[in-house]
Amino acid sequence: MNAKERFLKACNGQPVDRPPVWIMRQAGRTLPEYNKVREKYSFWEICKNPELASLVTLQPVKRFPLDAAIIFSDILTIPAAMGQEVSFTPMSLSPAIRTAADIDSLPSPDVLGDVGYVGKAIEAVRSEVGQDFPVLGFSGAPYTLASYMVEGGSSKSFHRIKSLMYSQPDVYDRLLTKIADTVAEYLLMQIEASANAVQLFDSWAGELSVADFRQFALPYVQRIIARLKDSSVPVIYYINGIGVLLEAAAESGADVMGIDWRISLTDARRRLGVDRVVQGNLEPAVLFAPADEIKRRTFEMLDEIGGVGHIVNLGHGVLPDTPLDGIAAFIDAVAQWSTLSR
Amino acid sequence: MNAKERFLKACNGQPVDRPPVWIMRQAGRTLPEYNKVREKYSFWEICKNPELASLVTLQPVKRFPLDAAIIFSDILTIPAAMGQEVSFTPMSLSPAIRTAADIDSLPSPDVLGDVGYVGKAIEAVRSEVGQDFPVLGFSGAPYTLASYMVEGGSSKSFHRIKSLMYSQPDVYDRLLTKIADTVAEYLLMQIEASANAVQLFDSWAGELSVADFRQFALPYVQRIIARLKDSSVPVIYYINGIGVLLEAAAESGADVMGIDWRISLTDARRRLGVDRVVQGNLEPAVLFAPADEIKRRTFEMLDEIGGVGHIVNLGHGVLPDTPLDGIAAFIDAVAQWSTLSR
Repeated sequence: MNAKERFLKACNGQPVDRPPVWIMRQAGRTLPEYNKVREKYSFWEICKNPELASLVTLQPVKRFPLDAAIIFSDILTIPAAMGQEVSFTPMSLSPAIRTAADIDSLPSPDVLGDVGYVGKAIEAVRSEVGQDFPVLGFSGAPYTLASYMVEGGSSKSFHRIKSLMYSQPDVYDRLLTKIADTVAEYLLMQIEASANAVQLFDSWAGELSVADFRQFALPYVQRIIARLKDSSVPVIYYINGIGVLLEAAAESGADVMGIDWRISLTDARRRLGVDRVVQGNLEPAVLFAPADEIKRRTFEMLDEIGGVGHIVNLGHGVLPDTPLDGIAAFIDAVAQWSTLSR
Repeated sequence: MNAKERFLKACNGQPVDRPPVWIMRQAGRTLPEYNKVREKYSFWEICKNPELASLVTLQPVKRFPLDAAIIFSDILTIPAAMGQEVSFTPMSLSPAIRTAADIDSLPSPDVLGDVGYVGKAIEAVRSEVGQDFPVLGFSGAPYTLASYMVEGGSSKSFHRIKSLMYSQPDVYDRLLTKIADTVAEYLLMQIEASANAVQLFDSWAGELSVADFRQFALPYVQRIIARLKDSSVPVIYYINGIGVLLEAAAESGADVMGIDWRISLTDARRRLGVDRVVQGNLEPAVLFAPADEIKRRTFEMLDEIGGVGHIVNLGHGVLPDTPLDGIAAFIDAVAQWSTLSR
């Protein structure tokens, strides 16, 4: 069974020789070979140059026996394509979107032109890995993207985006609909460029109440996933803090639910049904622990879920400064468990 | 029924004329009269001077018809008393606690000496409000305090405190036990100084998995609450992100469960039992919305819980820059609902 078969069968809940493993944020800041590239090129230069993006995307796959590559990019490509100046240290999106006029004057990106570099990067990765290895595309989910766009960066309170939704729900809806339609086009472009699965990252949806999530975040995710249905490419929906949102999030239409580390996969399955495919969810900070503790906790997670309908991952992106040995111990533990449980 | 009777009866789940209302972080940064005091005195100067602390504690109570005062202080009084230099902009606790030797050399504070100013401030407030108005004490909960102490400030990943718990659980236990015993003494001192109820703030426990919460946070909260039992003073336990931790947190022994805004109070009651007293939980960002939306959402919350066994509050501390009109509209809505539902 090659990695692509393994990954796609797991997404469909079919039996696999061993559960596939990849790591959110596997490409990038934790790897010394990435930091070397970054000495010469800016983050955006790497993203926009298909050769560099491909190089960086494949660095973790060459170093570790991972079962998927995820294209090196950022969820803020879409705000940038919608005309905001995006910088990272400190994070800033300017001008911030605040009024109905701001929203109505946002351009609808031409995804082939404005973010076509992501598709070209996927094609470059594909030409390196061939047809038997899965390449994942991704996008930020609409609520998370809108949060950044309206707050003008990161936020502790998110009171600007929430003020907009509570005070002017119709204006909020226009913004989110515009983002959702752009994200759908963007993901279709990535699929066209040969992405085998796509993940929606809803980093901030966990800051919403269940009721607000249902009203102000979920419908736009559903809108995107409905648009992708014809492509038959699996969609993974990840929310950081999915705990109380799990049942609602499962109505998104996603094939795979990304589970963060706060709840056990058993609990997720108990609440969603035994057939539900899940991705996750080792606590990222565990990779700072000794190898035997990483192995113990990885085995515990794999034992409870049993190797079927499970894409192994961390419960959140790999943390900055994570020891490379910790990453290796995690991936190795998955392989060991699979051998032992055969 | 005076405010103290109202508050204490609500804590005990007994009938009240109307549910009491207070607001987490009601004293401090949102009030212009507080900012005037801050022009002359530093944060720590206010905390440590009983007259100033009393003045600032009573500012929100004079401005709004609130049913309780909470002593103006900070959860970082305990790390400061344990010898760390605490500053706020940017937040820093130094030296950070990292090793077993660091932990073993931490002084056990003499609470009457090192943080006795909090007791004196409570006495000063008491002499202003008399016996019929409740004054609340508080402390950070052990896991949250340990997070700050080990990270050396705020953190996005909490990987240092988590590394400590995963790698050296015995050393972690020594630190948390030391903090818990200090917090218990600290709260007993506040009760001795006439606090009518005390709240434990576990701001960061929501970053733990359910299993880790049970192992690494809950036992130390239980240890504190057991020590307070003889005082017969109600304990409120607040976790930001209590959603998936609710059942475990309810085993803390606290009289009142503080619920953040992410789950509905109905859902909390359904999971905990109808007799469980809850505090909360309007989404703090709602106070930025127009008055009629604040009223609609406050009524919705009060309708679902029905006015018994409920201490009305926000689901998290009031946000910086919250409009004073929004705070007024919230408190007013509670009064209106109580009149209408009589």
